[in-house]
Order: sequence, then structure tokens, then C-alpha cells
Amino acid sequence: KPTFDPKEHQHLRYNPLRDSWVLVSAHRMKRPWKGQVEKPPEDNTPRHDPNNPLCPGSVRANGEVNPEYDSTFMFDNDFPALQPDAPDPGSDHHPLFQSKAARGVCKVMCFHPWSDITLPLMQPAEIRKVIDKWADLIVELGAEYTWVQIFENKGAMMGCSNPHPHCQVWASNFLPNEAALAERCQRDFLQKHGEPLLVQYARMEAQAQERVVVENEHWLVVVPYWATWPFQTLLLPRRHVFRLPDLTAQERDRAPTGSHLQEDMSHWQLHAHYYPPLLRSATIRKFMVGYEMLANEQRDLTPEQAADQLRKLGEEHYKMKKT
Amino acid sequence: KPTFDPKEHQHLRYNPLRDSWVLVSAHRMKRPWKGQVEKPPEDNTPRHDPNNPLCPGSVRANGEVNPEYDSTFMFDNDFPALQPDAPDPGSDHHPLFQSKAARGVCKVMCFHPWSDITLPLMQPAEIRKVIDKWADLIVELGAEYTWVQIFENKGAMMGCSNPHPHCQVWASNFLPNEAALAERCQRDFLQKHGEPLLVQYARMEAQAQERVVVENEHWLVVVPYWATWPFQTLLLPRRHVFRLPDLTAQERDRAPTGSHLQEDMSHWQLHAHYYPPLLRSATIRKFMVGYEMLANEQRDLTPEQAADQLRKLGEEHYKMKKT
Ligand SMILES: O=P(O)(O)O[C@H]1O[C@H](CO)[C@@H](O)[C@H](O)[C@H]1O
Ligand SMILES: O=P(O)(O)O[C@H]1O[C@H](CO)[C@@H](O)[C@H](O)[C@H]1O
Repeated sequence: KPTFDPKEHQHLRYNPLRDSWVLVSAHRMKRPWKGQVEKPPEDNTPRHDPNNPLCPGSVRANGEVNPEYDSTFMFDNDFPALQPDAPDPGSDHHPLFQSKAARGVCKVMCFHPWSDITLPLMQPAEIRKVIDKWADLIVELGAEYTWVQIFENKGAMMGCSNPHPHCQVWASNFLPNEAALAERCQRDFLQKHGEPLLVQYARMEAQAQERVVVENEHWLVVVPYWATWPFQTLLLPRRHVFRLPDLTAQERDRAPTGSHLQEDMSHWQLHAHYYPPLLRSATIRKFMVGYEMLANEQRDLTPEQAADQLRKLGEEHYKMKKT
Repeated sequence: KPTFDPKEHQHLRYNPLRDSWVLVSAHRMKRPWKGQVEKPPEDNTPRHDPNNPLCPGSVRANGEVNPEYDSTFMFDNDFPALQPDAPDPGSDHHPLFQSKAARGVCKVMCFHPWSDITLPLMQPAEIRKVIDKWADLIVELGAEYTWVQIFENKGAMMGCSNPHPHCQVWASNFLPNEAALAERCQRDFLQKHGEPLLVQYARMEAQAQERVVVENEHWLVVVPYWATWPFQTLLLPRRHVFRLPDLTAQERDRAPTGSHLQEDMSHWQLHAHYYPPLLRSATIRKFMVGYEMLANEQRDLTPEQAADQLRKLGEEHYKMKKT
């Protein structure tokens, strides 16, 4: 029998942040691709479009006029999934028909006045303003809400309906499923192993180097050992940091997104997930469909192969190369 | 304060099969759609294409020639995510870097010799042959493997790379995440409430009628109270049935997919999930993206509204209307 080779032999890997397993079948990358091919991302977005409701000076769905902002700009989502004052569905429920109150706010935050720019193309000082704003939001919304989720849907393929660079912030009075899972897993790990899960993990990945994509004095980006999306990465601080506002000025010059909780939690570590939908190129995506939805998440190349490809990409942004 | 109305007021609903919550924000359906519009499904598939590896008489990737089959036809997936003989990754693992052996088989099953037909357009006697074949497979593969997942990825939008009507069957020596969750939840429910979860649920939905889409003597199709996909449905037998092979001839004349386990399990009930990706029409999909992946699944219309729309669709298949 041949000896085990993760690139040739399917196996399961454990995700300690979600207490679940992912099926890794790297030999599947050998199959020819015959499925749907996506349109390449659009490259003709005008810098300013007076009809785009996210641009400076534009009129939004509710009739308000945006200021002529020159840095970040924040407003309440005009069609929020979470509102602050929804009535309570009540509590006398059958175990099979349980509901509970959900309250919160949904905000939209523009990163920059230009529509034809993205975070990686912005100047460090401009990015720093975004990060400071995120930290302020965690303080502000975190005072009232149990969980503040900052996320960016990037690209039409990921349901983003507006090319203008922006993220969303959804704060809720409940701990969402994913947060509750990460919270429980990290709590159990500290209790069992005496060190916060992601602090220990960052140290071990920095030692091994195999899955590290990029690192500096303060931060580490890895393709996690348990990644499900082909090029999924995880951003981790090197030291133990609870929340975005706890980052130092130096750390903020070099960091994105984060998470927040109301209690004091020594098991929690600030982190950001990136879930790009691509499998082989900018036009061939990974479909998480029948087997993944009904049975188990599955990936087609190893996290180590993905990290290697990402490391080799070079520093220069693809849009800069063209000009 | 207004009284609670699920169509107007966001709330959380509990999914007892997954022990998790879904955020229901039906008021979001009021927003105008500005996102990606999908291509309508193709309608020009030839009945027979000698270059399509799923057609009768075609040559497949491995050089084998398909028989001139006139009913169902089964073969081993040429690029299987699960193989029967993968070596074991070993067992001496750090808690943050755990892996384990995954063994199994992946099969492809064609439903019909024609490429321009789908299950709903096939004759009842032809569908019955598919169901009998599924039941045979559960017996055959279930003798060796812990879990046999039958699934159909339908449409290019869901990663299906071949228009020929077919499903896949992935059998594994491990219980996949979703199966393990459904297994635990049903086991706990029986212990606590003295009746299998889905048996009780089917009875209560049949009484309430609010979420029933279609029913007959043996089966019930509902939009589950906890559905996450806009038009997700759940097929349930009215009586307690463990596995597909346990279905009577009469029941088979009226039923699809199923599941299987190696132990005797009185808490388990046979069921099939349908997860259509659409939100508003055949060209506007629901994106499960940033908030859903990082925080919590969210839906934009209530399951009751979805059931109502589905009930009103009428019996005639849309392709039959055109001709
Ligand atoms: O049918 P295929 O091409 O083997 O594969 C398809 O279904 C699989 C199981 O859901 C997914 O893992 C793939 O991403 C998808 O493209
Ligand atoms: O940005 P939008 O249009 O509000 O909405 C987008 O992100 C939401 C949060 O991930 C999803 O629920 C929607 O399906 C998606 O279209």
C-alpha cells in the first residue's frame, strides 16, 4: 500500500473553530473543467457615477443626499435585514416551531469616494481610516449589541450589487450561529489546553511556515489547515487581542476586519476570514452544492497547495500590471 | 408597539434538525433588485449528443464506451472525491492539526437515455425505475459504507456541468457533518419527546396546512418552518420509514431520494431536501454570502409566503406550457 500523501489521497481534516470536518480530495484537480465559466470581473466602472447611490453627492433610495465625502462614509442600510424595534414573536412555542426576537441595525460603509478603486489599491493612510472607523463602530454598536459583524461581499459573483468599494455592518442582539460556534470552540479549547486556540494556532503556523501566505511583525495570513474554500485565508494577530479597538496604532496600519463580544473572554482571539469563491482562475468558481449542502464540505486541492500558489502570486496588484 | 407579524418583523426561527437558527427578514423583499441577473436555463439541449459522455453509446473520460441503455445507467465517477483504497493519514495528531481516513465510492447515475428531459418530465414508470435503483444502491453500498448520499446538482447555476439528467451517489466510511448533526438532533428529540422528530413534524404540518406545498396518501412536501433557502422544501413520508428500501411499491410510485445508516435507529426518519438557489425568478438568485457565511443564515421571505407561492404554481410543467 502506498504511504499517505495529502495531495494524492483523500482524507478528512478537523476544523477546531467549527467542530466539524472537511473532506480534502486534491486528486480531483486533475479533472478537466467542463462546468459554467463566469464573466471576468468588470473593469469599466466609472470613477464617479451620479446615479450610483453610494457615490458622493448622490441621492439614495430614501431620498437622502450623500455628502461630498472624501474618505469613509457611513449610512443606515435602506433595506435592513435587522431593525432596532421589531416586536417580540412571544415565547410560548412548541419545540418544533420555535422563534425568538431578533433586533439590530444594518449599516453600509463606503471606503473611498471613488467607485473604481478597491481596498488593495488604496493608500495605507486611506486604509487606516477604514480600520479606525471599524474600531469606532465596534465601540459604538458593541455597547448596545451582542455581536457586530463587519463583512464585505466583493464582486457580482458574491452577490455584491454595487461596484463602489464598501462593506456592511450588521449588529444584532443575538449571537449568530457562526459566532456562537467559534465562541464555544474557543472556550472549550482554553479550558482543555490552557492557551487560546488561535494564539496557539498562529504560533504553530508561524513555525511550520507551510500554510503561511504573508506575515509581518504583527500579523499572519494563513490558509487554515481546515480551509473549505479553495483559497480561503485567515488573518491572525501574533499577540492575544480581543477586539478591533484593542489594536495599537502600529497594528492598525497593517490590519483588516474583526469581531466583538460583550463579556470578558480570555479564550477569544480577534480574527478575519476571507472566503474567495474561485477554484482555478478568476472565471472558474468552486461550487459548494449537492454534497456540500446535504452531507459534507469538500475541497479539491490541499490547503498547503493553495498557500503555495498564493505565496507565488507576487506583490503587485493585477490592475497595476496592466497599466 | 405593533403586534408581531412574521411578514413584517424580522425574527429568528429554530431548525431542530441542525440545532441552529435562521434569521427571517421578510420585509427585505420590498427592496428593488440591482444585483447580478443569471442567464435563463438553456433550452436547446439536443436529445442525443455523441460527444456528451453521459449519453448512450458515448466514450467516457477513461475510454469506456457506454451501453445503448434505455432506462437508468450507472457508472463510477471518473474523478471521484472518494476512493475505496486511500491510505490512512495515521492517528498521532496535535488537536489543531487533526486528520482522519476517508474512504468511499462516487457513482454517477443517468436517469434516462435522453439529454433533453428532466425527472419532472419523465413518465411515472420511468421515475419508478430510478427510485428502485436508488433503493438497490442503498442496500448494496449501505452494506459496506456508513453513509450513502444521493444528490442531484441541477442547472449550471448549481455547478452541474452536464445537462443530461443524472444524479450522483457518494458513499463514505464516515458520517458526514450534516448527517451527524441530523442523527444527533433526531436521537435527542426521540429521547426527550418520545416520538421521532420528523414523524411528529409531518403530522403537525399536515394539520396546520400553512406550509404544505403538495401531499398525497403517503407523502408530504412542506417548506419547513426553519427553511433557509427561499424555496427550500422537505419531502416526508407520513408513516415512520427508516430507509429507501423500506418503502412499499405504492410509496415508491410517488417518492424521491433518501438516506441510510448502518445501525438500527428508531429516531431516524427518511427525508429528502430540495434547495433551489432562486429568490425572485429563474434569473434572480439568493446569495448566501458575507453575513450568511460569517455569521448567520438569513432569508428574505417567510416560509409561509414561499409555500403559498409554490402552491399557486399549478400542476403543469413550464416546458409543457410552451408547446
Ligand atoms: O458534479 P461534479 O462536477 O463532480 O462536481 C460538482 O458537485 C460536487 C459535489 O457537490 C462539488 O464538490 C463540485 O464543486 C461541483 O462542481
Ligand atoms: O448587499 P445586499 O444586497 O444587502 O445583500 C447581499 O448580502 C446579504 C448579506 O450577506 C445577503 O443576505 C444577500 O443575499 C446578498 O444579496
